[in-house]
Amino acid sequence: MLGGGQLGRMLGLAGIPLGLEFRFLDPAAAAPAQSLGALVVGALDDERALLETVEHSTVVTYEWEGVPFAGARMLERSGHTVRPSTLALQTSQDRLAEKTAFREHGIPVAEFAAVDAWEDLRARVDEIGLPAVLKTRRGGYDGKGQAVLRDDRDLEPGFAALGDGGALILEALVPFDRELSVLAVRSGTGETRCWPLVENWHEAGILRVSRAPAPNLNPALQAAAEGYARAVLEHFQYVGVLALELFQVGDTLLANEMAPRVHNSGHWTIEGAVTSQFENHLRAILDWPLGATDARGVSAMVNLIGDLPDPAAVLAVPGAHLHDYGKSPRPGRKVGHVTVTADAQAELETRLTTLDAALARP
Amino acid sequence: MLGGGQLGRMLGLAGIPLGLEFRFLDPAAAAPAQSLGALVVGALDDERALLETVEHSTVVTYEWEGVPFAGARMLERSGHTVRPSTLALQTSQDRLAEKTAFREHGIPVAEFAAVDAWEDLRARVDEIGLPAVLKTRRGGYDGKGQAVLRDDRDLEPGFAALGDGGALILEALVPFDRELSVLAVRSGTGETRCWPLVENWHEAGILRVSRAPAPNLNPALQAAAEGYARAVLEHFQYVGVLALELFQVGDTLLANEMAPRVHNSGHWTIEGAVTSQFENHLRAILDWPLGATDARGVSAMVNLIGDLPDPAAVLAVPGAHLHDYGKSPRPGRKVGHVTVTADAQAELETRLTTLDAALARP
Repeated sequence: MLGGGQLGRMLGLAGIPLGLEFRFLDPAAAAPAQSLGALVVGALDDERALLETVEHSTVVTYEWEGVPFAGARMLERSGHTVRPSTLALQTSQDRLAEKTAFREHGIPVAEFAAVDAWEDLRARVDEIGLPAVLKTRRGGYDGKGQAVLRDDRDLEPGFAALGDGGALILEALVPFDRELSVLAVRSGTGETRCWPLVENWHEAGILRVSRAPAPNLNPALQAAAEGYARAVLEHFQYVGVLALELFQVGDTLLANEMAPRVHNSGHWTIEGAVTSQFENHLRAILDWPLGATDARGVSAMVNLIGDLPDPAAVLAVPGAHLHDYGKSPRPGRKVGHVTVTADAQAELETRLTTLDAALARP
Repeated sequence: MLGGGQLGRMLGLAGIPLGLEFRFLDPAAAAPAQSLGALVVGALDDERALLETVEHSTVVTYEWEGVPFAGARMLERSGHTVRPSTLALQTSQDRLAEKTAFREHGIPVAEFAAVDAWEDLRARVDEIGLPAVLKTRRGGYDGKGQAVLRDDRDLEPGFAALGDGGALILEALVPFDRELSVLAVRSGTGETRCWPLVENWHEAGILRVSRAPAPNLNPALQAAAEGYARAVLEHFQYVGVLALELFQVGDTLLANEMAPRVHNSGHWTIEGAVTSQFENHLRAILDWPLGATDARGVSAMVNLIGDLPDPAAVLAVPGAHLHDYGKSPRPGRKVGHVTVTADAQAELETRLTTLDAALARP
């Protein structure tokens, strides 16, 4: 496993009951996954560390899309099976390539255009209109590497803020109704499954709460999302779990970005679905049959950001399941999450209110 | 944790998401729990190993009722918190003390009497009648340490088979309708919860299949079982999960034995209940609030005995969840289990038939 963060930790927790053994590569000796297997401490682009990690492995996977493509490709070239495909990894690391791939498969996206230099920006803004978002093509997550352009005065500071000024993408800022995501999985045998759509609420660019299945879900939306996810899976001959982030605008969905891995908006599946994203990712990359992705009741996942609350306060909330990632506290850091399950939406909302009060406690 | 077998492994898997860290004591370096924490390799009665294991611990628990009482008591005397209470451990290690405690609390049991020597046996058989079961008071599990006495000719070989001939118990052999068990938990604050009754099917003295909630469950039976379990919990001022094995005879329940720990007949709770026995055991011994013990749909747990099947064959069964204990194969050894979940009993039975076929495959 390339990366040993919380996603690696939850993959480890799902895999040990299946009889799997893990070796993780992570730069941090205190990586959250370290209690679930062997840990190689090293940089994700260190060739020797990469090879040491994957020695004797059946399959190599990654838990972070920031894993350097070159390293993953090197492992593939040296005869290791890397899943999901390194092409998916590479594409997900370039917003322009990603959006282009979506468009080529008929997946609706907000208007976008490449901005390679300051001189391009004016013309692209004239094409796409304002408001728009200027983003770095590479890097950037949790809201970093982006500048919103609302009027012409924002162009110069926006461009300047994104650093060296090359390799940007301009995207129309769509006034969406809500943010959704669909988690999908494809096995080595080509079997695919999708979980119900998730509604995501971000704050300061960081995911705060996911509700699943997304409330007020229109079956046509679910069908559309599954169609888009399957198109992406087939395009990459993808093996493993994929997350596709979407904007809902009226009755249509626009694809925002993909993550070629298990995803924060899928953590609810541990308690809230018949089979979790973590277990199905492992089943997929091992060519095992996939498990059912049906929801069990309704769930909400609340990220714990910065530091952890008193476990006793969280566990006093009916239906609450605590996930501590074993990380030290730091402002803005995802250190854990709580999934609350219930039989019905009204009961879930009541429980979430109780959880909010518990989390607000000093 | 005293013991690092599959119960320790599943406690570890439940505890890591809660932010817990474990140190296990087990005689085997390849103990199933070793991938979930630090492992001290040593005998469970080795004072130095015991003290090394519990150093810096918040709480000490055990995953096997065969843990020598003297060792657990020594830890308690040296200032460590041992939960469940060592009195419960001690009592569970002596069938006569256990049955006597049940009877003192008004919990129905089959007729029983102490047999301290060959000379006693005749008189006890005359009191209790035949058929009866002669058992060692200590040791013996999975059907070992027992002799069924059907007529007078069985007395001598039965007595001889149980070893040195002292410290036996004679119990009336009750023609029961089915075997049930109730899992119950009590926290350090005195809060108690019970999971729905489980129906257990044994073969050659080893648990093969548990169904939960027990089919055709009479609410009065559930209430009676909970009353008995709570009486035992209160008697011992018990903290943690307790299993109480019962025989159903018509509309009544007879208590057979207790296990002062998480129990094989509670493994279904991982997927089949809101909170698993493993998580609630940990919550209880840490004085955290208990989680709900309601069933989610219907479940059946099938033990994997001897060796493991092909994981792909098991995972092809809808609703099947595989639990590999990481043990080497050996005839009669519990090496894993499969829990099958479904929304309704008929669907569950169909899935179990499919699982049976998968397990029977060569």
